[in-house]
Amino acid sequence: MTQATIITIGDELLIGQVIDTNSAWMAQQLNKAGIRVARRVAVGDVWEEIWRVLDDESKHSDIILITGGLGPTADDITKPLLCKYFNAAMIVDAGALENVTNIFTNILKRPMIERNLKQAEVPDNCKVILNKRGTASGMWFEKEGKIFVSMPGVPYEMKGMMTDDVIPGLSKYYQFPHIAHRTLLTAGVGESFLADLINDFETALPSTIKLAYLPNYGMVRLRLSASGFDKDAIENKIQLHFNKLQLLLSLYLVTNEDEPMQQVVAKLLVAKHKTISTAESCTGGYIAHLLTEKAGASAYFSGSVVSYSYKVKEDLLQVDKNILESIGAVSEEVVIQMAKGALKNIQTDFTIAVSGIMGPDGGSPGKPVGTVWVAVGNPNKIVTEKFQFRFDRQRNIELTATFALNMLRKFILSDL
Amino acid sequence: MTQATIITIGDELLIGQVIDTNSAWMAQQLNKAGIRVARRVAVGDVWEEIWRVLDDESKHSDIILITGGLGPTADDITKPLLCKYFNAAMIVDAGALENVTNIFTNILKRPMIERNLKQAEVPDNCKVILNKRGTASGMWFEKEGKIFVSMPGVPYEMKGMMTDDVIPGLSKYYQFPHIAHRTLLTAGVGESFLADLINDFETALPSTIKLAYLPNYGMVRLRLSASGFDKDAIENKIQLHFNKLQLLLSLYLVTNEDEPMQQVVAKLLVAKHKTISTAESCTGGYIAHLLTEKAGASAYFSGSVVSYSYKVKEDLLQVDKNILESIGAVSEEVVIQMAKGALKNIQTDFTIAVSGIMGPDGGSPGKPVGTVWVAVGNPNKIVTEKFQFRFDRQRNIELTATFALNMLRKFILSDL
Repeated sequence: MTQATIITIGDELLIGQVIDTNSAWMAQQLNKAGIRVARRVAVGDVWEEIWRVLDDESKHSDIILITGGLGPTADDITKPLLCKYFNAAMIVDAGALENVTNIFTNILKRPMIERNLKQAEVPDNCKVILNKRGTASGMWFEKEGKIFVSMPGVPYEMKGMMTDDVIPGLSKYYQFPHIAHRTLLTAGVGESFLADLINDFETALPSTIKLAYLPNYGMVRLRLSASGFDKDAIENKIQLHFNKLQLLLSLYLVTNEDEPMQQVVAKLLVAKHKTISTAESCTGGYIAHLLTEKAGASAYFSGSVVSYSYKVKEDLLQVDKNILESIGAVSEEVVIQMAKGALKNIQTDFTIAVSGIMGPDGGSPGKPVGTVWVAVGNPNKIVTEKFQFRFDRQRNIELTATFALNMLRKFILSDL
Repeated sequence: MTQATIITIGDELLIGQVIDTNSAWMAQQLNKAGIRVARRVAVGDVWEEIWRVLDDESKHSDIILITGGLGPTADDITKPLLCKYFNAAMIVDAGALENVTNIFTNILKRPMIERNLKQAEVPDNCKVILNKRGTASGMWFEKEGKIFVSMPGVPYEMKGMMTDDVIPGLSKYYQFPHIAHRTLLTAGVGESFLADLINDFETALPSTIKLAYLPNYGMVRLRLSASGFDKDAIENKIQLHFNKLQLLLSLYLVTNEDEPMQQVVAKLLVAKHKTISTAESCTGGYIAHLLTEKAGASAYFSGSVVSYSYKVKEDLLQVDKNILESIGAVSEEVVIQMAKGALKNIQTDFTIAVSGIMGPDGGSPGKPVGTVWVAVGNPNKIVTEKFQFRFDRQRNIELTATFALNMLRKFILSDL
């Protein structure tokens, strides 16, 4: 099976200054196209390290995709290195020059400087991939039956090249097998319990189908994978086993697609033509953000009140000042009033209200860090639940959002 | 200089199902401790691939840190592989068994099953690292002068082990040099322009100090790095050059720390004892989320109205219905009214209001996708700006937030 390695270049990756999101996206695209990614390697802007990773990976992989280090400044050494690695001479590419000139003249409307012109230079034995979204060209090299493609590290530019040129280009070279995945999400049970529950299923799985567990704090994703050249046969076979798996796990199943909780809720709302609002204290707008991250959110999401202070809870959600002062904001009474306030003021079919202590400060013996009250409901009924998380602030915010959305999902499904 | 490799194990990394955030965090911690990360490698749950990466990396690095593949299910093969790789036999570790039992009895309050007990098994020649946050133990191996540490892939568990055991453990073995970084953020100028502006500075930099450019759509981070055993000398030297750099770039400087825009704004608000609110349409609560991601946000952040629908803009921010219907929500008039509404209803010193078209749908010839109006101000004065972004939805949301926060930063600084 044709194998690929993804190489990302940049010191910022090795000191942890940025999180590498390019690799995950590239891996998804390659996988969809039937190309197995065998490795992902990140190296710094260091000549010897880049050279070594090219040597090493071309021994094992057929396709080497490289991002990063193509900028116009001195720390960007990928282009001269590739020029030397492939024994080439640097020339100005007419198409790349036109592209750079066009970007400066018509988009940036800034004068070009010498350094920008350098962006139009490429090694003379590569096929140039036009960058429609930036000044650094992509470069396609072939050597001893292996394909090397170098792309900019800017995600938006890399993505354009991958979609328009690299994936179509690779598909011309190889006949790739079909890769099929099926993923489902469960909530409420641990990985070991699930594994025992589906033990017979797992044991009986044909060796061509792989099962993976992806636990994530109280939710576990299960994934089946298979590949082969007969697309229909692969798809039918994996679907058959996936159906069995869903049946076995029906009690804990959240979704049978590889999608986050907010998309499950969004699809449910759209299907039922219902709208939602949120009243958020401790999550500070994060649930609203999740509900609006995909296009089309206005079909189901109307708005939110982020009520961080007592005053906003009182003024915009009509939470009772006496209750805030006597029982405190992190209480069942307050999230119920927040939910009622949101339903009344934003006028949606459903709402989510949350109030909690995300940490690391603000805890007390009675209400330690990680204490969260959630209310979900509609104008007729509100249900509440108290959670006790035990993680760091960022994780507590994410978990509160996911569990609150899951509560709403169950509420909508039971609200027939 | 002592070098480390970070190896992350899991098929999910190679099909792009998850983004690897562990590596970046680990790299930060290693770097702080004076350990240079030479490479980060991700491989799948495949016996031969894991074996090969251990062989390869131990040739070049002194320290090999491994995460992932330690779960209780069949797809987790890291532990048996390490047992074989280090010619060990599997034994039950008493401390690990007590830990697993305690977690099930006192925290999860669930009966233990056979599979959970397996989590207490370890190769007999490793030093066990107690997992205070989960059931999978960490394992510390030594072979031919190299150190190999295996940790769970769950970020919260891995972080605990790194902080409490791995970094302190490594620091006992090696005398690490001091690594110093200085990072500043600029806004409003491109990478090439900056490079020309500081050309003389860059040329005159001693070879022991490295300069890196980290461009990110309209903002560029510049980083100086140096390392050595005389901590004070290194710190003094890098600070001297960093001071020069700041002076050269003072016109474009946003912050001289490695922090995101929202922290710059937060610190400014705290220093001036001022509060902020937001009125968000297209960003759907994302700016509020950014302003509340760090502890202590209640000192400066009061709340937000996320007004996705016209009705919420009218009801909670008193935006004029006629203007919404005649000019449309994405307009200067509307963001001004949203800002005024937020200042009046949330009663803060400053506010940010945004309305735009994030895409991929909803654009028109007069207002293409990426059109965004931002208003920032206080009760006495409101300033507006129109942006035209040209990226995908997620990126447009992020950019709108960053540029709006930068507008507010400049407004606060000019509001003396």
